[in-house]
Amino acid sequence: MLIQALFFFSLLVASTQAFDFCVADPSLPVGPAGYSCKKTADVTVDDFIFSLAASGNTSNIISAAVTPAFPPTFAGVNGLGISIARLDFAVGGVIPFHTHPGGSEILVVIQGQLCAGFISSLENQVYFKTLVKGDVMAFPRGLLHFQFNSGKSPALAFVSFSSPNPGLQVTDFAFFKNDLPTEIVAKTTFLDIPQIKKLKAILGGTN
Amino acid sequence: MLIQALFFFSLLVASTQAFDFCVADPSLPVGPAGYSCKKTADVTVDDFIFSLAASGNTSNIISAAVTPAFPPTFAGVNGLGISIARLDFAVGGVIPFHTHPGGSEILVVIQGQLCAGFISSLENQVYFKTLVKGDVMAFPRGLLHFQFNSGKSPALAFVSFSSPNPGLQVTDFAFFKNDLPTEIVAKTTFLDIPQIKKLKAILGGTN
Amino acid sequence: MLIQALFFFSLLVASTQAFDFCVADPSLPVGPAGYSCKKTADVTVDDFIFSLAASGNTSNIISAAVTPAFPPTFAGVNGLGISIARLDFAVGGVIPFHTHPGGSEILVVIQGQLCAGFISSLENQVYFKTLVKGDVMAFPRGLLHFQFNSGKSPALAFVSFSSPNPGLQVTDFAFFKNDLPTEIVAKTTFLDIPQIKKLKAILGGTN
Amino acid sequence: MLIQALFFFSLLVASTQAFDFCVADPSLPVGPAGYSCKKTADVTVDDFIFSLAASGNTSNIISAAVTPAFPPTFAGVNGLGISIARLDFAVGGVIPFHTHPGGSEILVVIQGQLCAGFISSLENQVYFKTLVKGDVMAFPRGLLHFQFNSGKSPALAFVSFSSPNPGLQVTDFAFFKNDLPTEIVAKTTFLDIPQIKKLKAILGGTN
Amino acid sequence: MLIQALFFFSLLVASTQAFDFCVADPSLPVGPAGYSCKKTADVTVDDFIFSLAASGNTSNIISAAVTPAFPPTFAGVNGLGISIARLDFAVGGVIPFHTHPGGSEILVVIQGQLCAGFISSLENQVYFKTLVKGDVMAFPRGLLHFQFNSGKSPALAFVSFSSPNPGLQVTDFAFFKNDLPTEIVAKTTFLDIPQIKKLKAILGGTN
Amino acid sequence: MLIQALFFFSLLVASTQAFDFCVADPSLPVGPAGYSCKKTADVTVDDFIFSLAASGNTSNIISAAVTPAFPPTFAGVNGLGISIARLDFAVGGVIPFHTHPGGSEILVVIQGQLCAGFISSLENQVYFKTLVKGDVMAFPRGLLHFQFNSGKSPALAFVSFSSPNPGLQVTDFAFFKNDLPTEIVAKTTFLDIPQIKKLKAILGGTN
Repeated sequence: MLIQALFFFSLLVASTQAFDFCVADPSLPVGPAGYSCKKTADVTVDDFIFSLAASGNTSNIISAAVTPAFPPTFAGVNGLGISIARLDFAVGGVIPFHTHPGGSEILVVIQGQLCAGFISSLENQVYFKTLVKGDVMAFPRGLLHFQFNSGKSPALAFVSFSSPNPGLQVTDFAFFKNDLPTEIVAKTTFLDIPQIKKLKAILGGTN
Repeated sequence: MLIQALFFFSLLVASTQAFDFCVADPSLPVGPAGYSCKKTADVTVDDFIFSLAASGNTSNIISAAVTPAFPPTFAGVNGLGISIARLDFAVGGVIPFHTHPGGSEILVVIQGQLCAGFISSLENQVYFKTLVKGDVMAFPRGLLHFQFNSGKSPALAFVSFSSPNPGLQVTDFAFFKNDLPTEIVAKTTFLDIPQIKKLKAILGGTN
Repeated sequence: MLIQALFFFSLLVASTQAFDFCVADPSLPVGPAGYSCKKTADVTVDDFIFSLAASGNTSNIISAAVTPAFPPTFAGVNGLGISIARLDFAVGGVIPFHTHPGGSEILVVIQGQLCAGFISSLENQVYFKTLVKGDVMAFPRGLLHFQFNSGKSPALAFVSFSSPNPGLQVTDFAFFKNDLPTEIVAKTTFLDIPQIKKLKAILGGTN
Repeated sequence: MLIQALFFFSLLVASTQAFDFCVADPSLPVGPAGYSCKKTADVTVDDFIFSLAASGNTSNIISAAVTPAFPPTFAGVNGLGISIARLDFAVGGVIPFHTHPGGSEILVVIQGQLCAGFISSLENQVYFKTLVKGDVMAFPRGLLHFQFNSGKSPALAFVSFSSPNPGLQVTDFAFFKNDLPTEIVAKTTFLDIPQIKKLKAILGGTN
Repeated sequence: MLIQALFFFSLLVASTQAFDFCVADPSLPVGPAGYSCKKTADVTVDDFIFSLAASGNTSNIISAAVTPAFPPTFAGVNGLGISIARLDFAVGGVIPFHTHPGGSEILVVIQGQLCAGFISSLENQVYFKTLVKGDVMAFPRGLLHFQFNSGKSPALAFVSFSSPNPGLQVTDFAFFKNDLPTEIVAKTTFLDIPQIKKLKAILGGTN
Repeated sequence: MLIQALFFFSLLVASTQAFDFCVADPSLPVGPAGYSCKKTADVTVDDFIFSLAASGNTSNIISAAVTPAFPPTFAGVNGLGISIARLDFAVGGVIPFHTHPGGSEILVVIQGQLCAGFISSLENQVYFKTLVKGDVMAFPRGLLHFQFNSGKSPALAFVSFSSPNPGLQVTDFAFFKNDLPTEIVAKTTFLDIPQIKKLKAILGGTN
């Protein structure tokens, strides 16, 4: 009986690649759907595990840190339609306005108190609230949103995304941390020139 | 022979609804995939036609106008994965930095000269150029982008989207045209309070 | 200038429904893509917030509890491609073998120690490991997986899914917690009749 | 222990609608993703079963018959991404050139001999072959294809589609079985007027 | 006129790759969306044809056989969203409880009598029935289901899937045909140790 | 402060590939989702720009020209879900009946007058109308449609598609511009042999 079982579905496993998962192999070409897959024979459980145990370094301009678990570093989520990141906030820490062009976000507060919100498109409606430990908040795909520590102690949250590659576009960085000429920034944001120059100086923008 | 043909595929057309298209009926419920469909029997060619012949009114703060052809006004594109809008620019006109959370955009210049660009996420790389008549430019989904008239005469362009409901989030409107408290705007944008108050005043924001 | 701004994009906001999100209205019809949307005017920030602060009741057969944040209870994630749940494990607690037919899962350990694993299809390869605080593990869509408390204290984890409606099919419940006749269970699982009857008795199955 | 099990996952089943399936309820609105779902409590196994046992009536102009199992008649496949149809061919029977705008097709020959083929877009390459019992052939989405009985006895095949609503556009019917004016047909097909009039007469077209 | 036609759409066919189909080339990298495509010039009609004429060998533990037509063996369905398999059942044959993580299934009975069923998630509702020649049954994506020969003669069916890579996870094989330690199987299935050891012995599991 | 900002999100940009876009690199393998991506470091703004300024050559059999902006020529739209083409019509010009198997189309008339229409599947309903400058018309995915110059001067239109790879299958070319044997064309189209031979001669078909 044992022998017979070995023949069962034998045709099925003759294929070189199953499609249960597609662990990223960054040495191979990347396509619109993500990274190419590592050979199944080379996949181990560690491809599906990632440690977000360490607190991010919040000694920076925003007193906060984003530690992502995205491919190819977290190779196992390639193609799975999901990913995760850790958010650390020192007292006063803030994740400034940003979007994820590639996915929706869900946040759960593990420690501390956060104020979080997003803005709808077209009507520019504000949806924001103070969140405490155990609170979950959803942020729809592509919309501007923010989180900041509104409490008196450090805060910790985890955010998951509906894509392994959600992207992250911080508005301030897009406006002020590159070489887009100041006059174009002014024309397309209505901000005053001194304001733009001040933030370019802080964030490392030129022109 | 004619009679026989009438029986052919008769079972197929017995269903109450074909799925070639799903013309929006805004009186029925809306779901994540779009509007409910009008009965096929009530659909006419006019559901698939929309006039963008008229120039938008550019006598406004941006000297530009966006005239969209989206459902439910343009009912026929509901569910089709595409839509279109007309962009008019007076001399000096600008479509300020904005995103479309729901889709990519492709622009074709019909008249005049535009400067257009977008910013990548993560690396904040700027991609911008001057476009002339006949030039096409693509703007990837969800990324911040802008267009402004860089010529000496009015300009006209059409933009198509990879979704019937691309959305439109103008950064300035999201920051300054609602009741998000000024101190939160300051905290999450690093902008100075006077700058925020100035733009709230212009755009109609409160708090 | 203020007045002029009010006209800007006026056509865009004339539509009755934006598509940034689609908060579930369970009183309306449900379709393959999810619940119908609540009118935007009735949406509040609370639709996007859900509390998973309370520990689930682990005084049950598995010494564990799953507390989901799915629509329509968590109305805001309808259509967003993501959802979340809280997992509580008493000492010895176990989430038995199960699948989520509708989505991939990503787990983060908040407290305690878990042993977690999944089995690939076709090759029946086992991927399992002991996870500690801060560890993240991904479970590909539809594959059999399990988690159990392998430590000496209670454990807590959050799991996110790549769908608002991932589903949950516990193998034991599918086999033993309904009226599927015992002889059919035996024929289709190769389990012995007494084993089946024992588990049907525990889980409430009949026939 | 039995009692305790009843509490397990109790929150999960409190929702009014699972998303394992979405059996079509044609009395409710239809959306871009398909029919609205019947209440789960009203679903029975018969919603997932359809008989294609009866041979279609091939006493018609093509000596062939297509018997589809599509929603809402076959309500269970709504939203599942698949459907099926039965093809009967008398001797000399033919399914003329047609497309399925909404899905790919896979055909398996159960009895008899068929000649089947499709044409690629852009390069107009022909892919056709004679198929015998047990042969499977795939037809990519949206491409023109045909099947005809090339043997000396009746033939039977089943065709499955990658959508519950693949659609069926028979080229001859699109050209000749409606009121599109003859001169427009001529202009847009390059066919001669007498040819068009002849086929309009056979298929019931006017104008 | 002939010459002129050769110029028509000449730009379109200058691209190196059409996207009507993407025949699998297993020598190239695999990605989340499937195999890389063979060059169009190398594609022949035989890439789209596969013979399922031969009965599978049912001299095995389940007295049944599954003969799949999946890529890369059936290279033409790569990327098309559909695939097919042949099911042979000797008298008493059974396809034990299993899932397809990657797709829904539709079955048509060609010969004999089958009992087939599936179990819903969350509510564990059983949907099963006896099927005869010509009966079609749908099995929603990812749900546990089974088929067995409930007649007195051999049975034959074809099953199509809503994906070229549906996967196949046989619950018994996942539990008992690998090296998952017996104590973990017991803990996560509630099965008795002797039962687990017995099935591991039959199916070739270790530990 | 500047220094500190450089550390912010540093983990995020360590990945070798962002997924904002996937500019086609035709030297790498192609998959079902499109071309492989060029390295982000090699991407320039010109990858997202394409000139459709030049009128197509309408000195051909149809007195019209289609000038597409598709990948790999227009590399930037690969993976973005959108593309565009320019349509030029001399007086009397016609784009004969055709389909786009891979996407819906939206057309805007820039100059002149067009008659455009499509045919629904199953019911063969005709939807057609005369369009003038500024008119937009949508053509649902995969359906037969046509456009011709119904005015007395040249016409110009732009058409966008809901896919970077919509494909283009001109019915006449599929029937008459290849080596499909005349008797098979006759059998599968009901056209008369002389009509087929006449069009094969014009379009370059053989057999």
